[in-house]
Amino acid sequence: MGIVVQKYGGSSVADAAGVKRVAQRIVNTKKAGHQVVVVVSAMGDTTDELIDLANEVAPLPPARELDMLLTAGERISMAVLAMAIATLGHEARSFTGSQAGVITDAAHGKAKIIDVTPSRIQKAIGEGAIAIVAGFQGVSQTTKDITTLGRGGSDTTAVALAVALDADVCEIYSDVDGIFTADPRIEPRARKVPRISYEETLEMAAQGAKILHLRCVEYARRYDMPIHVRSSFSEKEGTWVVKAEDVAQEATMEAAIITGVAHDRSQAKITVVGVPDKPGEAAALFRAVAEAQINIDMIVQNVSAAATGRTDISFTLPSSEGQTAMTALSRIQESIGFESLQYDDSVGKVSIIGAGMSSSPGISARFFEALSEAGVNIEMISTSEIRVSVVVSETQVVDAVNAAHAAFDLGSDEIEAVVYGGTGR
Amino acid sequence: MGIVVQKYGGSSVADAAGVKRVAQRIVNTKKAGHQVVVVVSAMGDTTDELIDLANEVAPLPPARELDMLLTAGERISMAVLAMAIATLGHEARSFTGSQAGVITDAAHGKAKIIDVTPSRIQKAIGEGAIAIVAGFQGVSQTTKDITTLGRGGSDTTAVALAVALDADVCEIYSDVDGIFTADPRIEPRARKVPRISYEETLEMAAQGAKILHLRCVEYARRYDMPIHVRSSFSEKEGTWVVKAEDVAQEATMEAAIITGVAHDRSQAKITVVGVPDKPGEAAALFRAVAEAQINIDMIVQNVSAAATGRTDISFTLPSSEGQTAMTALSRIQESIGFESLQYDDSVGKVSIIGAGMSSSPGISARFFEALSEAGVNIEMISTSEIRVSVVVSETQVVDAVNAAHAAFDLGSDEIEAVVYGGTGR
Repeated sequence: MGIVVQKYGGSSVADAAGVKRVAQRIVNTKKAGHQVVVVVSAMGDTTDELIDLANEVAPLPPARELDMLLTAGERISMAVLAMAIATLGHEARSFTGSQAGVITDAAHGKAKIIDVTPSRIQKAIGEGAIAIVAGFQGVSQTTKDITTLGRGGSDTTAVALAVALDADVCEIYSDVDGIFTADPRIEPRARKVPRISYEETLEMAAQGAKILHLRCVEYARRYDMPIHVRSSFSEKEGTWVVKAEDVAQEATMEAAIITGVAHDRSQAKITVVGVPDKPGEAAALFRAVAEAQINIDMIVQNVSAAATGRTDISFTLPSSEGQTAMTALSRIQESIGFESLQYDDSVGKVSIIGAGMSSSPGISARFFEALSEAGVNIEMISTSEIRVSVVVSETQVVDAVNAAHAAFDLGSDEIEAVVYGGTGR
Repeated sequence: MGIVVQKYGGSSVADAAGVKRVAQRIVNTKKAGHQVVVVVSAMGDTTDELIDLANEVAPLPPARELDMLLTAGERISMAVLAMAIATLGHEARSFTGSQAGVITDAAHGKAKIIDVTPSRIQKAIGEGAIAIVAGFQGVSQTTKDITTLGRGGSDTTAVALAVALDADVCEIYSDVDGIFTADPRIEPRARKVPRISYEETLEMAAQGAKILHLRCVEYARRYDMPIHVRSSFSEKEGTWVVKAEDVAQEATMEAAIITGVAHDRSQAKITVVGVPDKPGEAAALFRAVAEAQINIDMIVQNVSAAATGRTDISFTLPSSEGQTAMTALSRIQESIGFESLQYDDSVGKVSIIGAGMSSSPGISARFFEALSEAGVNIEMISTSEIRVSVVVSETQVVDAVNAAHAAFDLGSDEIEAVVYGGTGR
């Protein structure tokens, strides 16, 4: 009889049929005896269409006004969803982020939630209504202007509301059944993970898995709010994201050392050729990149060639930031004295993730052997406590995922993964 | 150097090109030394599209949620307009009705403005920015829910803001040059009226002229706020709507007795046949219609036929309300004992309006003679202090307008009226 917060993404409410289907699910949850608070994203491609409209009138739209514009998207979806619920005979009241008490800083386009004061939501559910809240948006504490939370904002709104309302669970709905051992589109034997820790989920997300956004998982971990990732197209249990102890409690005798394989094709590699091998040169290089606000990921420095006193330094970064980084580096070519720059965006990153890894030696060796047997050439390597990542040629990403998936026995005996949707997106 | 409030309708900002054009106009006004506050409607057909979306999910969308939905339309247009102004190098800040301090009652879909507290607008223009305000919307004083003002809401927002800000003028932009002596689409010799009183404008609007909404003119009259009706497609002076004394001051030697001819094709006529000619029967009839929230306009009761003791009662009403009225009347057929109902929506109303009428005898006679000479048959007549209206067959509306226009010498020597637009609407 507790509070359930549900979040539905844009693909779940892409059209009238989707809205009606989601409305029925919400009503079912209410009928099961729960108090229901729903966070909803903009319908289908609405946000992209609004951005296109902005670009038609302004090459560089002011951030305050872009936020005002984009928040119209959730305003539409939440009102329409509330109407669909009313048609099923239940009262629903929609609330903007501001009305729901989502208080943020004033950083338009990437605002951070600094407080949630959901008194209007509590009043609505206390009076027996279903509350529908616009995801992705809030109101600045200082300027009282409307803000958006940026990428993953709706998931974060849902978790933050769940925490503020002391909900039993935050259910995040999308068009896939949960979190899988690998992307089902490239690994047909991928298996849904029933439970996974916040930490593993963070690594999966950071390494390219598309289900949950980092911010929302971090928020849930900080306040220990269970997330249930599931499909709005099916009634099946999805994946529970919980604290590590709760995963261990539920673990079967054959506890998996590796939880999943993530991949990321959005990386590029820059190689700085012929850097003078003197103290401080690498630091100057990365200071220039950092000043350009570029997030670099892996770094490899080749062994210096004694004859020349020069070395090559390679690093990876999101390919969307490649041009900016190349420009920043070109500017310091003369002062550093390196020979040339090479840019390669035909690379991909493949990672194995698992909390059991730290206590099981030989995981990296087994991973690299599997890649070698599959003929995959490793270009770079990085590791964390619960992760091993490699950079490979983009053409070998699928082979690498399949090899790793098989090497750690992650597959199910039958093909289980289903990607729903059918919205034409 | 005072405050100018400008209101742009949906056809002026129907697409990106329109938004940019309007942005340039606003910037020109700012450069001329004014503080500028802009009220904007939803772009083009946005409101209709949102209503279609609502109807896709809910046959009877709850009024609170419909208001939440529709207010997304102005949110989009105002943000995009602010962006276009920024591109021209001027700061613009957009504000929702709620942020602009438009306080209303809680009547969703037809809320009344009960207060305007525009402190954020004053701050914005005080800091040199242009303020862009969403028309048609406000926030309920009691429930804090978002409301819409209904038909003519954006015009009313503009006038109410102009009054609250003590502006010099409220400029209402559309795709026509001003208020004309008749609708230029059916009267090619129609002439733009340079000045017109609030009272005459109210009669014109009530009798079907489409330029200004009754509510906005009533609001302007109450607070004596001059309205300048003009085209967003041209730099020409439009029509000034001012108090009657100010029209008289400016009147030329040949003061026009009649200011204009209005017509309205949206009327229908219901005839209740064979009503017992006893006291109280007509009252019962119209009480039934009133209880169904129908606005009736003209009423004619035929002379009772002595032989039968029965009479026919005809009245006109908006044809959109015809079905409701017929249903309400059918329900009381037995209790009243009338014989039958006749419904006719192929009627139109033609009115001549002019403040000089009350002091000039013979106006009605000249009007009726002109109609007679043009072969137009008068079905019903009603008059006010400054207006004479007739109901005619819909097929004779144009003939009636042309005849009246000529009879009172309203035409210009050359064809002056231009309807702009080109938005495909």
